[in-house]
Amino acid sequence: MAHGFRVWAPDRERVDLVLGERRLPMRRTEGGGWELTVQDAGPGTDYAYSLDGGPPRPDPRSPYQPRGPHAPSRLVDHASFAWSDDRWRGVPLPGAVLYELHVGTFSPAGTFEGAIEYLPHLVELGVDAIELMPVAEFSGRRGWGYDGVSLYAPHHAYGGPEGLKRLVDACHAHGLGVVMDVVYNHLGPSGNYLPEFGPYFTDRHSTNWGDAVNFDGPGSDEVRDFVVGNALMWLRDYHCDGLRLDAVHAIADDSAVHILDRLAEEVEQLAAHVRRPLFLIAESDLNDPRFVRPREAGGYGVHAAWADEWHHALHAALTGETDGYYEDFGSLDLLAKALRQAWVYDGTWSPHRGRVHGRSPAGLPGHRFVVCTQNHDQVGNRARGERSSALMGEGRLRVAAALLLTAPFVPMLFQGEEWGATTPFLYFTDHEDPELGQAVSEGRRREFAVFGWEPEQVPDPQEAATFEQSRLDWTEVDKESQARLLAWYRELIALRRRIPALTDGRIDRVEAGHDGAGLLSVERGPVLVAANLGA
Amino acid sequence: MAHGFRVWAPDRERVDLVLGERRLPMRRTEGGGWELTVQDAGPGTDYAYSLDGGPPRPDPRSPYQPRGPHAPSRLVDHASFAWSDDRWRGVPLPGAVLYELHVGTFSPAGTFEGAIEYLPHLVELGVDAIELMPVAEFSGRRGWGYDGVSLYAPHHAYGGPEGLKRLVDACHAHGLGVVMDVVYNHLGPSGNYLPEFGPYFTDRHSTNWGDAVNFDGPGSDEVRDFVVGNALMWLRDYHCDGLRLDAVHAIADDSAVHILDRLAEEVEQLAAHVRRPLFLIAESDLNDPRFVRPREAGGYGVHAAWADEWHHALHAALTGETDGYYEDFGSLDLLAKALRQAWVYDGTWSPHRGRVHGRSPAGLPGHRFVVCTQNHDQVGNRARGERSSALMGEGRLRVAAALLLTAPFVPMLFQGEEWGATTPFLYFTDHEDPELGQAVSEGRRREFAVFGWEPEQVPDPQEAATFEQSRLDWTEVDKESQARLLAWYRELIALRRRIPALTDGRIDRVEAGHDGAGLLSVERGPVLVAANLGA
Repeated sequence: MAHGFRVWAPDRERVDLVLGERRLPMRRTEGGGWELTVQDAGPGTDYAYSLDGGPPRPDPRSPYQPRGPHAPSRLVDHASFAWSDDRWRGVPLPGAVLYELHVGTFSPAGTFEGAIEYLPHLVELGVDAIELMPVAEFSGRRGWGYDGVSLYAPHHAYGGPEGLKRLVDACHAHGLGVVMDVVYNHLGPSGNYLPEFGPYFTDRHSTNWGDAVNFDGPGSDEVRDFVVGNALMWLRDYHCDGLRLDAVHAIADDSAVHILDRLAEEVEQLAAHVRRPLFLIAESDLNDPRFVRPREAGGYGVHAAWADEWHHALHAALTGETDGYYEDFGSLDLLAKALRQAWVYDGTWSPHRGRVHGRSPAGLPGHRFVVCTQNHDQVGNRARGERSSALMGEGRLRVAAALLLTAPFVPMLFQGEEWGATTPFLYFTDHEDPELGQAVSEGRRREFAVFGWEPEQVPDPQEAATFEQSRLDWTEVDKESQARLLAWYRELIALRRRIPALTDGRIDRVEAGHDGAGLLSVERGPVLVAANLGA
Repeated sequence: MAHGFRVWAPDRERVDLVLGERRLPMRRTEGGGWELTVQDAGPGTDYAYSLDGGPPRPDPRSPYQPRGPHAPSRLVDHASFAWSDDRWRGVPLPGAVLYELHVGTFSPAGTFEGAIEYLPHLVELGVDAIELMPVAEFSGRRGWGYDGVSLYAPHHAYGGPEGLKRLVDACHAHGLGVVMDVVYNHLGPSGNYLPEFGPYFTDRHSTNWGDAVNFDGPGSDEVRDFVVGNALMWLRDYHCDGLRLDAVHAIADDSAVHILDRLAEEVEQLAAHVRRPLFLIAESDLNDPRFVRPREAGGYGVHAAWADEWHHALHAALTGETDGYYEDFGSLDLLAKALRQAWVYDGTWSPHRGRVHGRSPAGLPGHRFVVCTQNHDQVGNRARGERSSALMGEGRLRVAAALLLTAPFVPMLFQGEEWGATTPFLYFTDHEDPELGQAVSEGRRREFAVFGWEPEQVPDPQEAATFEQSRLDWTEVDKESQARLLAWYRELIALRRRIPALTDGRIDRVEAGHDGAGLLSVERGPVLVAANLGA
């Protein structure tokens, strides 16, 4: 057994491979790399790197962090897993219904393995693919996943690489695809050792989270390869069917080949290799068609974008909420516009932004937009994490579901939505560093104080109970009103399968409007969806 | 049991539905249609139409012609077939290897059912999809299929609708996709009753076969729907995965929405409905990127085009043949160009055409080109239907296979090529009309007389023996030299699966050249393909 270790650390004088108590000096290679082949290392070996004699640091490309993001990395042989999905041919995004889930709260076990037991529920529901909130190793055992720092390592608390492969394999056995949520616009606040290795970040651009990931400055070739390699790993080694790219508006790249363009190009080649459709979904609030146009049409070639405005227009109309970004929404006119074209702000004045926003989506097929009535952000970014079921009656929940599942876009459900789960989905963290933990707790309280919330009303993200409350309660599913809503969702998804007009992506054929008295109507070919939203 | 009969015959004064001895007058509807609902008709009912009191004519959209193209049509209930492929998710074209076959000569039985027995051979070979030469009902029991006249009816001699469904279902069970060859540029010379029904043809344009199909003249809306409906039928009701569109250069359409553009748009919606990738492949010698560019980039959105020049460049270099269109080929320079970009004439002077031909394929991915070393046309349009195995030694057969299966394009094999079948693939017909039969036989002799062939050397297309000689001889497969070639093909296809660089579609990365002394080399990433074509 031998393994060739390789790491990039261009500005270091010395890099040692740390194997238990041993420190083995590595050889510098061209382009800022270091390498060393070790005879007695292989799958299962724990290792780290020491930079200029410093403390052991996990591998930036660590495949597994069995003891968290600060501890040594462990080698994994991706080829050794016994996949049973060789007949799996993937899920094309057009026509699909997605289901977003958070591994930690989806099942009682809160692990990859634990999720497998509930896949039959999803098959009966009729969705095509699950979308996993990010699973890359983050600090602590509980978290949404957007604080990932070991981007190549499925979280050890979820079951690590082996567990994730078992989940994906089981999904494919059930006829379900898997979309992986990946974060390339920032890293989490704890356990990010990348800056010690090289110029992974740059102050050329700044984001909500500080310095931007370095996609266009000196050294960015390697950073781009790091990101592309990560994306391809999920699709190739973990057999995922698509990726959801977090907050691409926070990816700053002035290169002639934008990193998303590069990513789409590489994914296209991998798709040909594995002979399955592979797709990229971008989270973006820019309302810019460039992201989702084919590369041959001058776009980046991303296959779809989240259209949060569809959610906002619907949510504001159904709840009457006008706080924060909902100030841009609320009227049935804007809702009808969203139902027709996903993007509400298409070159029009946005009061919330104080400027004209967006561009017309005309000419794009509806399959380029992922829409939802709820998602982790829209639920979890409320002070008390209320789902729609806590904000509106069954009638409006049904209206929301009907508008979602008859849309010309790609509908996405959020775990438990299908039965109107009464459990909240709160913001939770588990930072081990007490200062960081306190900062997060206080930040959360401060965030909601401006909306008039008392500190004690805002659940503490760091408390284990906050996480536990957010766990789905599967015993609810059979209760009468929940079962009734679930039946409605199943019926709508089945209808979407049966009637070709419902998945027709020609958005210029969608008619949507209202009568001025609260009666909303959407025509999709032979189907008329009518909803009474009057008093 | 009741059935609503509908037919388009805009210029007729009277249309009768013919059911056995009964003639039931139909009711005129808007737009030139006629309809009649009959209580005692349903799946299995034979029927025809009489136009202005004329003889019974088959339905232009007949789903089945159990007694040939001149006899009555039979109703079919597509929903009644017991499909077993509900887990089938399709074959994406990028990365696929296709296998062209002719139902009548592929198996000893010469039927859809008869082909099923040989699917395991194709699975072992490693191809992804079969491409069926046209199966629409044509005159007689034997024929290539390009003389189809009942475009909606799988040929009765092959096993009709039921047989085709069984074959497709069996293919899917074996993990193989099915591409259907369809002909929308002309109809066959015998049994074409469409002109009696309406303006299906127009003299606005003319083709090799006479008047063009009417895609842009008065009445063309209905003709376009006829063609689109046909395409969707194969994909939806017969579960096919793709279509190969015959000779699209002979489809003349000056509409603002070219019929191929329309077809691609409709197929895109159907793909979302059935949630499988569905693709269109065009046979075109125009070397015009417009056909295969995405619709959003101003193209027609067809997914790939046959690139016959790739074949010609290879064939001329390997055989030294210079007759006919091969005069434009022969040098290793042109072969290297084909290996790099499929199209040889990309805005350059073509001696054979006497003009500049084509346009650069730059910017198109390699997956947009289907290439082959042999196909039904290239083999069958030779006077004696010789395959490559009759024209070159094993070494060159191996070179051809290697260049094909390491190409950045979509490779296609022709039935039996994989073992160097010694059986020819001749041109055969079975026209019942003696005058037509004689005309075809004489035409064939005349065609080759100009190349110096004596009439008696050219097999008579109308002779049953000509068809029988063209049937694959499966006992050959195990013979030593055949088995050796077959092993080579299997190995190459397996290699294509293993090495991602081989299916990489970025044609600008392909290096191909020669040393001036017959040594040809192609570089595909880490792979070097070297072939000695010197004396």
